[in-house]
Amino acid sequence: MPTSRTTATALNSYAYGQWYAGKGDGIILQDASTGQAVATIDATGLDYQAMLGYARDKGGPALRAMTFHQRALLLKSLGLHLMANKEAFYALSTATGATRTDSWIDIEGGISTLLSYGSKGRRELPNTQLLMDGDVEPLSKDNSFAALHLLSPMEGVAVHINAYNFPCWGMLEKLAPTLLAGLPAIIKPASQTAYLTELMVRHIIESGILPEGSLQLICGSTGDLLDHVGPQDTVTFTGSAATGHHLKSNRNIIANATRFTMEADSLNATILGTDVNAGSEEFELCVREIVREMTSKTGQKCTAIRRVLAPADRVEELMQAVVQKLEAVPIGLPNDENVKMGPVASLAQRQEVLENIEALKTEARVVTANPEAVPLVSGNAADGAFLKPVLLHCEKPQEATKVHAVEAFGPVCTVMPYEHLDDAASLVRRGEGSLVASVFTNDTEVARELVTRLAPWHGRVLIGNRRSAKTSTGHGSPLPMLTHGGPGRAGGGEELGGIRAVKHYLQRTAIQGTPDMLSAVAGRWISGASTKTDAKRHPFRKSLAELEIGDAVLTERRTVTLDDIEHFAHFTGDTFYAHMDEAAAKANPFFEGRVAHGYLIVSFAAGLFVDPDVGPVLANYGVDNLRFMAPVNPDDSLQVMLVCKEINPRENEDYGEVRWDCTVRNQDEQIVAHYDVLTLVAKTLH
Amino acid sequence: MPTSRTTATALNSYAYGQWYAGKGDGIILQDASTGQAVATIDATGLDYQAMLGYARDKGGPALRAMTFHQRALLLKSLGLHLMANKEAFYALSTATGATRTDSWIDIEGGISTLLSYGSKGRRELPNTQLLMDGDVEPLSKDNSFAALHLLSPMEGVAVHINAYNFPCWGMLEKLAPTLLAGLPAIIKPASQTAYLTELMVRHIIESGILPEGSLQLICGSTGDLLDHVGPQDTVTFTGSAATGHHLKSNRNIIANATRFTMEADSLNATILGTDVNAGSEEFELCVREIVREMTSKTGQKCTAIRRVLAPADRVEELMQAVVQKLEAVPIGLPNDENVKMGPVASLAQRQEVLENIEALKTEARVVTANPEAVPLVSGNAADGAFLKPVLLHCEKPQEATKVHAVEAFGPVCTVMPYEHLDDAASLVRRGEGSLVASVFTNDTEVARELVTRLAPWHGRVLIGNRRSAKTSTGHGSPLPMLTHGGPGRAGGGEELGGIRAVKHYLQRTAIQGTPDMLSAVAGRWISGASTKTDAKRHPFRKSLAELEIGDAVLTERRTVTLDDIEHFAHFTGDTFYAHMDEAAAKANPFFEGRVAHGYLIVSFAAGLFVDPDVGPVLANYGVDNLRFMAPVNPDDSLQVMLVCKEINPRENEDYGEVRWDCTVRNQDEQIVAHYDVLTLVAKTLH
Repeated sequence: MPTSRTTATALNSYAYGQWYAGKGDGIILQDASTGQAVATIDATGLDYQAMLGYARDKGGPALRAMTFHQRALLLKSLGLHLMANKEAFYALSTATGATRTDSWIDIEGGISTLLSYGSKGRRELPNTQLLMDGDVEPLSKDNSFAALHLLSPMEGVAVHINAYNFPCWGMLEKLAPTLLAGLPAIIKPASQTAYLTELMVRHIIESGILPEGSLQLICGSTGDLLDHVGPQDTVTFTGSAATGHHLKSNRNIIANATRFTMEADSLNATILGTDVNAGSEEFELCVREIVREMTSKTGQKCTAIRRVLAPADRVEELMQAVVQKLEAVPIGLPNDENVKMGPVASLAQRQEVLENIEALKTEARVVTANPEAVPLVSGNAADGAFLKPVLLHCEKPQEATKVHAVEAFGPVCTVMPYEHLDDAASLVRRGEGSLVASVFTNDTEVARELVTRLAPWHGRVLIGNRRSAKTSTGHGSPLPMLTHGGPGRAGGGEELGGIRAVKHYLQRTAIQGTPDMLSAVAGRWISGASTKTDAKRHPFRKSLAELEIGDAVLTERRTVTLDDIEHFAHFTGDTFYAHMDEAAAKANPFFEGRVAHGYLIVSFAAGLFVDPDVGPVLANYGVDNLRFMAPVNPDDSLQVMLVCKEINPRENEDYGEVRWDCTVRNQDEQIVAHYDVLTLVAKTLH
Repeated sequence: MPTSRTTATALNSYAYGQWYAGKGDGIILQDASTGQAVATIDATGLDYQAMLGYARDKGGPALRAMTFHQRALLLKSLGLHLMANKEAFYALSTATGATRTDSWIDIEGGISTLLSYGSKGRRELPNTQLLMDGDVEPLSKDNSFAALHLLSPMEGVAVHINAYNFPCWGMLEKLAPTLLAGLPAIIKPASQTAYLTELMVRHIIESGILPEGSLQLICGSTGDLLDHVGPQDTVTFTGSAATGHHLKSNRNIIANATRFTMEADSLNATILGTDVNAGSEEFELCVREIVREMTSKTGQKCTAIRRVLAPADRVEELMQAVVQKLEAVPIGLPNDENVKMGPVASLAQRQEVLENIEALKTEARVVTANPEAVPLVSGNAADGAFLKPVLLHCEKPQEATKVHAVEAFGPVCTVMPYEHLDDAASLVRRGEGSLVASVFTNDTEVARELVTRLAPWHGRVLIGNRRSAKTSTGHGSPLPMLTHGGPGRAGGGEELGGIRAVKHYLQRTAIQGTPDMLSAVAGRWISGASTKTDAKRHPFRKSLAELEIGDAVLTERRTVTLDDIEHFAHFTGDTFYAHMDEAAAKANPFFEGRVAHGYLIVSFAAGLFVDPDVGPVLANYGVDNLRFMAPVNPDDSLQVMLVCKEINPRENEDYGEVRWDCTVRNQDEQIVAHYDVLTLVAKTLH
């Protein structure tokens, strides 16, 4: 359909602190349903090297100067700001062919990913600039040499090359962990739907929430961008395997070992369990899920179900049930409230889907009636990229190749029979690695057998049954807290998965040195490092403003008597034989006689180290990694060393968390218990 | 030097369960010192695809059928077996040019890596076939839908392509995490020193310790091997950047998203701190380290110091001190006890080093006298690949490029001046990513500033000072428990680092479903899953043989009185104001009045859940993740739910660890405390 150049907005890039209009004429982007011009796109003349430099020199340092909690709060502010403006995005989103429900996944799903990282960042990360990864590794017997692993933000930029199907979510799901890690980003949306990404980026930039340089946008070609990425940069790609492989092989990316994350084709499968008969709840759930995955976003989801595996004797019933529901799906204009499925994103995309259906038809027959005729409840079939859902049936899937390899990126799915669970697992593996698989079963053994076999080949596996019918988030939904990505054909990448995704932008470094050196570098007290005791001032008397790591108290000694043990046993009711019966305790392989309760040791320890008066310490909210290292026998004498280990002020509270290293020793200086005491401490004295 | 074909052993490959002699004539491998033929190498005719198939079909399933602890015990057995036979390896190692000390790093360093993983595998991993990664993610309010992440062994093979400098360690450091993960390996050593690898593989195969198919060896070319790796395989490469980039770009590796780990060139730096003056202990340590790194393995270590950065006014003194020590290093035959430095591995290697020195000389002058004349204490300079250590001085390193890019893989190092710490950090970064850097300083602030700037560009950073002079493991030593690998030029790979390295061979998969489904798949009880209580039989009465996950006890209730709190406070000495003073407690932002001690809650909880009689439960060895979720006020009534969560039998003991989920609720069913109780339980009842 011809469109005039004048009706369309020219999309701008946002580069080195300004909006940039391409020097060329631009390519016209059309509304998926009407073919009308929505925008033109062109980035001719952009200085890509300058964009990388701007991100590295301006955005990176600004973000790295902040702590994880401060960056998490940026994400929260940004999420709330975008949510408040969401209707602007919904209004434009229909041009992509998305119904309101489809747009919800893209727009609110994306924004909620920002919010989720905003929340996780403050809940699961310390309020620091560097992360410690794992435990301290002692490297000498006298504790003069040790090591730890640090995770620090890379000093480069994250280049995110995104697919057309999720112009908002696709950007935000990558942006959230990137910014939380402290890296600036350059976003390159796929042209077809870039107008929606551009609109959202305009809202982000105009909000002023992000430090300048932390977000740039390319509307148009990436030009020579990838020829200038370096060893501290990351490139992520979502899209077709062919393009992805081309980018991943870029000489510069290879030579610099630039981190490259890819998410590409995926022949996701769902499996109807051997225990599931027609008419059962799991059968209905499976049918509903297949129909939803075929029609949601008009099947344009990388996670959509492409292959359905059913026990051979249930294939017919399953196909009938699916076809019946598919026939009832109203197709038409995405802004028509009655419509459940809009067009695919473009006529070119429709053409590609039709060609892929032809390829699948060499191995499978079409089950749905009249696949060519698209019954529209609104809109004009000649103008829009409308498609009717197409269900195929492949009778001999073990002999087929295309049904396991050709991803028709639209409302298309192939049903195939299997004989037994082994057979089902081997068919799924023929996809050569996928983003997600689902299993519908109400039998835990069927679930265990299938899921453990599918796991190495997938980034996510969902089990559906009646108990989770109402609460399941569904086969096709990546979630911020769960890994998204799959091995092999799916690209081998890993996105999301909560804080795991943040680590993709951090460099892990082993640091070796004396405990004092390690403490200085890591900003937390390390076992063996110097401590500061002050007989005149217990560390519980210090607010966060005064407290320092290494501040410590070495307590008086307390002897544990047999009477204490007896008394504690009867007071608490814990009369376990090892505390009460000398002979029985002796017979135990770990004890030489009656021992004190572990809980008695920690209770006495608290009695020794607590400073009781009102002060900045507000509460003991927990204990971590408590280990009883040696038995305490009657008349052993205990002494406690309590050292301030980590200080984490809360950004928006007048207190913070303080972690204390607590070591309880006996009269022979042997450690009998070791643990972390967790307290809440006020920022200032009142 | 001419050598006759007949004197040399033909190295065999070990493929599909048999030793295989190449069909070709083979290439002659020469002794580094004498030029005499040691062996010939050729793999002509190997069926590489069959090797991959054999590993995947035979080795993989055998290894995956074992648990992590069982595989860790394999590593231990293998390590002990090789250690018992170490003299055979030492005897052959001299042919590579290695002195006894050099060989120790390679042979015993390699074997101890096996032993280290054998030990870590049993200490840090559960005795299961699958790992859980991170916490359960609740996905519904009613706990009917949740998720967790599993790590499962990939179903492929690990192809390890190794460098010539560490024929034993290079193999074993990769093999240890591979086998522990449950993957079979195909080893391809660099030809020059493959005879030593072959000898060690013979010992491994003949020991019968590893399941058949879990280890294969290629002596010679990899042929078309990489054209057949798939989506579940991993390829690791150690060697030159040029070869590495070629392999990483292999179309098949790209298309299958085959995991690829590379460790290549690295211009590792050491920095003399601004605080360190000539004659100080750190100055001497730095000098000693430079000399050691230049001469150990004749500088043929990927981690060796290639660049030395010193404050401009201390460069001369530092160079003089280094040269003086270098002059005193006796060079000669590696089996000569007086010799501290042998030849490089081959004449070709020597030629390459000399060419690289020429390149460096365009930007730096040679400081050492008479670099061409090699003074030998034994051996013949004409026959062997002997080199004299060469120290260079680059006066304007900010203007230079080659000193930051050319890795002369021998006893060669360039000293350069810096002005201030910023300058030093920027010079180090010019290496574009390295395996390791070291900093010599006795000032924690200098250490902190430098290390945090260097960390994103390195896989390891070592701080050297007087306190760790005797215990430091040194700049050049990768350790099993520390990450080895670096970003950018260093290849971007990550090896070792303890259990982290095992995860490189596991696939992470998010699993979603009901808690019961997740429990069945993960083999551990998940919050919200079914529990089994038996009023007639407390779970403490069950041995590991009878105990099942989900076995539980719901206790009686106990009311906490004000008297209890008073009594506990005075008994333990913990008279913290929140327990004792109603008004002061009320003023605390978290409490509404006097609260029970956290330690009182867990003590009463134990009194409620413990079954006191002699039985299979042997000890409570610890508590994890204890969180006090809500205050307990006087007259609140507590009830405990204790559920068996994880069962980990020890392979070589008659007991195992049992982890119990412990939830303490008040009269309103509100959770007041949640934690894991850790116990040791006998495998059988006596």
